[in-house]
Parts: sequence; C-alpha cells; structure tokens
Amino acid sequence: MSKRIVIALGGNALGNTLPEQAEAVKITAKAIVDLIEDGNQVVVAHGNGPQVGIINNAMSALQREDPSQGDTPLSVCGAMSQAYIGYDLQNALREELLDRGIRNMPVCSIVTQVEVDPKDPAFDHPTKPIGKFMSEEEAMAYTERTGYLVREDAGRGWRRYVASPKPKHIIEAGAIRALSEDGHLVICCGGGGIPVYRTEKNHLKGAAAVIDKDFASELLAEQLNADMLIILTAVEKVAINFRKENEQWLSSMTPEDARRYAEEGQFAPGSMLPKVEAAVKFAESKTGRQALITLLEKARDGIAGKTGTIVQMQEAGVPEREAVGALS
Amino acid sequence: MSKRIVIALGGNALGNTLPEQAEAVKITAKAIVDLIEDGNQVVVAHGNGPQVGIINNAMSALQREDPSQGDTPLSVCGAMSQAYIGYDLQNALREELLDRGIRNMPVCSIVTQVEVDPKDPAFDHPTKPIGKFMSEEEAMAYTERTGYLVREDAGRGWRRYVASPKPKHIIEAGAIRALSEDGHLVICCGGGGIPVYRTEKNHLKGAAAVIDKDFASELLAEQLNADMLIILTAVEKVAINFRKENEQWLSSMTPEDARRYAEEGQFAPGSMLPKVEAAVKFAESKTGRQALITLLEKARDGIAGKTGTIVQMQEAGVPEREAVGALS
Repeated sequence: MSKRIVIALGGNALGNTLPEQAEAVKITAKAIVDLIEDGNQVVVAHGNGPQVGIINNAMSALQREDPSQGDTPLSVCGAMSQAYIGYDLQNALREELLDRGIRNMPVCSIVTQVEVDPKDPAFDHPTKPIGKFMSEEEAMAYTERTGYLVREDAGRGWRRYVASPKPKHIIEAGAIRALSEDGHLVICCGGGGIPVYRTEKNHLKGAAAVIDKDFASELLAEQLNADMLIILTAVEKVAINFRKENEQWLSSMTPEDARRYAEEGQFAPGSMLPKVEAAVKFAESKTGRQALITLLEKARDGIAGKTGTIVQMQEAGVPEREAVGALS
Repeated sequence: MSKRIVIALGGNALGNTLPEQAEAVKITAKAIVDLIEDGNQVVVAHGNGPQVGIINNAMSALQREDPSQGDTPLSVCGAMSQAYIGYDLQNALREELLDRGIRNMPVCSIVTQVEVDPKDPAFDHPTKPIGKFMSEEEAMAYTERTGYLVREDAGRGWRRYVASPKPKHIIEAGAIRALSEDGHLVICCGGGGIPVYRTEKNHLKGAAAVIDKDFASELLAEQLNADMLIILTAVEKVAINFRKENEQWLSSMTPEDARRYAEEGQFAPGSMLPKVEAAVKFAESKTGRQALITLLEKARDGIAGKTGTIVQMQEAGVPEREAVGALS
C-alpha cells in the first residue's frame, strides 16, 4: 500500500565531517530507497546541527582573519548548510536509485525557508547553543562586539545561544509539492529550514534561530498532505520507564497516551519529548495520519507495522469520543 | 509576445559582500520582474565569483584554526554559494513580485550540478584564480600540503588556479523545467553549477573547477527549449573596434558575423569573447532562438528590440544557405 511519506533525518544520518557525511549518506540513501522501492512517495527533510556549526565557525574564522568581512547571520549559514548537505545527499540518493534500476526519479534539493512568529516566546528564552566554545573573556568580547547572547554551557565553556521558535509555514512548500507530485525525490527543510519572519508587508527577514527539524518536518508533512511522518531517532521504539526495571517498549500510542506519558515525565526534554510532540501533532492533524518513530534501518519494517512506535488517533472505525472530538 | 527566457546574471548583479548583495538583489529583482510583468517565463541563472571566493576563504580559515577540519572541496564551496546567493535572491524576487501584486508565482532555488568531461582539455590548463592571495612561501607550503596548483597572478601575489571546463549536461534540468512549467520562478545553475563528472557507472564526483556561467546558462537554455538567452554584461551593446575611433555598437549579429569579428580579435578573451561564444552557440542550436547581450537595466528594452545586441541565425523566412545548413 503506497503512502506519501515525509522522513526527518537526524544528524547521525549525516555525520560530523565531510568524509563522515560521504559515508553516512550512502547508508541513509539505502534506507530511503528501500521505502521508494516499496512504492512509497518520499520527501526527505533533515537536520543540520554539526554542519551549521562548522559553517558558522568558518565564517567567524574568516572574520577574525579579515575584519572587513562582516558578520554572516546564522540564517545565511543555515542556507549554506542546506546545500552543503543536499549536494552529498542528493548524489547518494541518485546513485542508489540508479544502482537499483530506478531511472525515472530525479533527485533535487530545495533551499527552504520556514516562517516563524517574531513574537514566539522562544525568542525570550534562547535554548540552542551554536558555534565554538569560548573562554569567558572571549565570550564577553564577542557579545560586546555582536550583541549576541552568550552563556556558560554545562561547564564546557561559553557559547552563543539562539532561540528555537515553532515553525508556522514552509515558504517553499508549493515547489516541494509540485516536484514530488511530478515524480522527483525532494530534499528540503534542511536544519528545520532557514528561519524567517515577516517584517513589512512582503518582506522576509532571517531570524537568529534554529527550528527543530522534527517540528518543521511535521509541518511539511501537513502542508504536503502526507499519510505518514517518519521521525528517526537512536532507538527502535519509544519506551516508557526508559532504562528502568519496568521499561516498556511501545508499538503504538494514541495522542492521549502520549500526553499522559509526557505529563508523567517519561520523555527526555530536548531528546524524545519533542519527537513525541511532533508525532502527536501530526497524528492529530487529520484522521488516518500516522507518525512513526524508529531507527533509520527499521523504517521499512516500521511502515509495515513490524516495529517502531506508531502514533495515531483511534481508528475511524472505532468512533471513540476523543477521535470524534479531534475531527470536529 | 511571451518568451521563455533564461537570464544569466553576472557578479555585478550580486555584490561582493552580504550587505552589498542585499542591495544588489533588489535592483536585480526589479529588472527580472519587469520581464515577468511583460508576460515572459523566466529562469534565473547566476555567477558566484566573489561569493565562492569568500566561502572558500572561510573554509580555509577554519582549517588553519582547527586542522582537524579537513579540506573543503571547491565543489562543496560552490554548492554553498548557491544557497548563500539563492536565499537573498529568491527573497528579493518574491518581495518584488508580491509588491507588484503578482501573487501566483512562487520563487525557489535549486542546488544545481553540471556535468563536465574529465577529459576536457581545460583540466590541463587551469585558468581561473580562486581564493586569497598568498606570498610565494605560503603558496609553496599550500601546494605541498594540498597538491593544488598555484601560480603568480599578475604581480598581485600567488593564488590557486582551477580549470574552467565546458558544461555538458545540467543534472537537475528536469526539476528546473518541471517547476518553471508549473509557474515557479526558478533560480539555478549558481556559479555555472557545481562541476561534477561520472567516475563509475552511476557516481558523480565533484571537480575542482569553475564552469563559466554564461556557457552553463546557454546549455540550460537549450535543455529548457528556451526562446531567448539573455547574457548580462557591463555594456549596453557589443562593440567592434571597442574604444577606438571607429568604434561601432552592434544591434545584431549573425553567428557568421560573430565568428568573423572574433577571428579579428574584436572581443576580449575572458570578458566579451565567452559571452559572444555562448550567444552564438545558443543562436545556432535551433532556428528562431535569440541571444541578447546587454545591461541588466536594458533587458526589457532589449527583448523589445530597442537596444542590446541580438545574436541569431538568418530569419527562417529568408532561407540563406547557412540557416538551412544549421537546421539539417
């Protein structure tokens, strides 16, 4: 049964350096082309944590050597990271498709912007460290010069911190949809997208922020009317009582289950919690939509219902009060 | 009369720094949206000379600070430059379209690879300087470490030199065509495209090279079956006897005229000559195809036949031997 799928690749699917990336994208490509061979229509979104860090460090290093080069905003670094990753990823996918005799599926990468709300409360509480570690003295000089927020990072030194606002709208969703429906394999929303906000009527301005790639992928899946959102992580299934005696791996959850577990503190903030939240948001956006949380190499089996954790509302055939309520 | 147009923007349409780029793309956007308002279907290709230089310098500066960061190939820097430019350019175009009430034309940037022939003789004679100037001592250490070719650049210091092979095939032409036909304004072939070549059956490998953006735009225009290729330059028309007493500005040329002038040495190598060569190639690729060489701000008048230099074969209505020959 063919599905329209958005798959959200994490940093571990991409490696931390270019040589690592070249190897990682090969493995990633195999897993994704498996889904395509099964007849699914796939759109690929991905993170950019290590990559945007490297690029941000490089642009800062250049500025230290040549102060006439102004500061490169984080949004521009994010844009660059999309091509830095997209170039390797699209080639690995292209090669894997051709190696399997799939000759009618061109691959391409779209520079993707994601609109955020400048009034998002996240801007008041920056939570994402980026760039290199600094001494306190360096950090103070840096914040003096740039106005950027710096903070001590868990005893490892000082770093710049930026906000992680919620995505509101994928600006290039139309292009992604048009290409996907025309039979292209599209790579997009790199790093959760370049965060932008409207300043004047028609102007988009880059935000010094990082959008969570799972939330961006969720929004993309909604905008593309996808059947399934696959959120990849480092475990095969979501667990409750994780690493405790009564640890329990979950094959499925309803949004209500997930909320109850979250309230119990079952999911680690900044780790499994945002993944579960993104999964719940997608599952609740329309009856029949499923979110799958699993390992990259288990995605194929997960779609087949053999492993992973599926988040979805009650089946339409079982009209429970919650399911009906969510539809109205 | 609506035309399908590929327009090749030069570096001066993009500026040398990010603040310059932000201003330059506004002016560029106005000129391009003029053509769209006239009913033309436009695809935008562009150079990346200053930008890929900045990015290449930044990645080198990072490596000097942190040698654990390996070398970033020029092809990866080229990919990054496409998003660095595309992000600003697509927003300027989007804003200009919306400001004029054109609400049904989304804009996007495609990471574009262009295949070259690894046996292209250009690889034996690198002609394009890239990256920063070095002292002789620095240059020798650099070439020792990297194996890259360095050469003295016109008394200004030493630089890395790379080849400028001819483009053979735009890998993502299908995506560009699909989006353009679906009503999107597509930005692509940045810097002449990321140069790649086939190593094994289905593998594409980045080449340490820079493809001339006018030749890449010409090939794109052929692959998109465009009616017109616009090559922007710093003069309103092509001249013969340029800056001499008998200087003559040309409103049109046939490919035969252009070849004769080129043989006479009328066009400066590395400047007007490759533009004329690209224009001739497009004009000769199919009867009726026109190449226009002019200033950005004269493109609209040039399409209307009021200025600029048009390169085209003899009209089909005037069946001269050359025109018929070119069709067979």
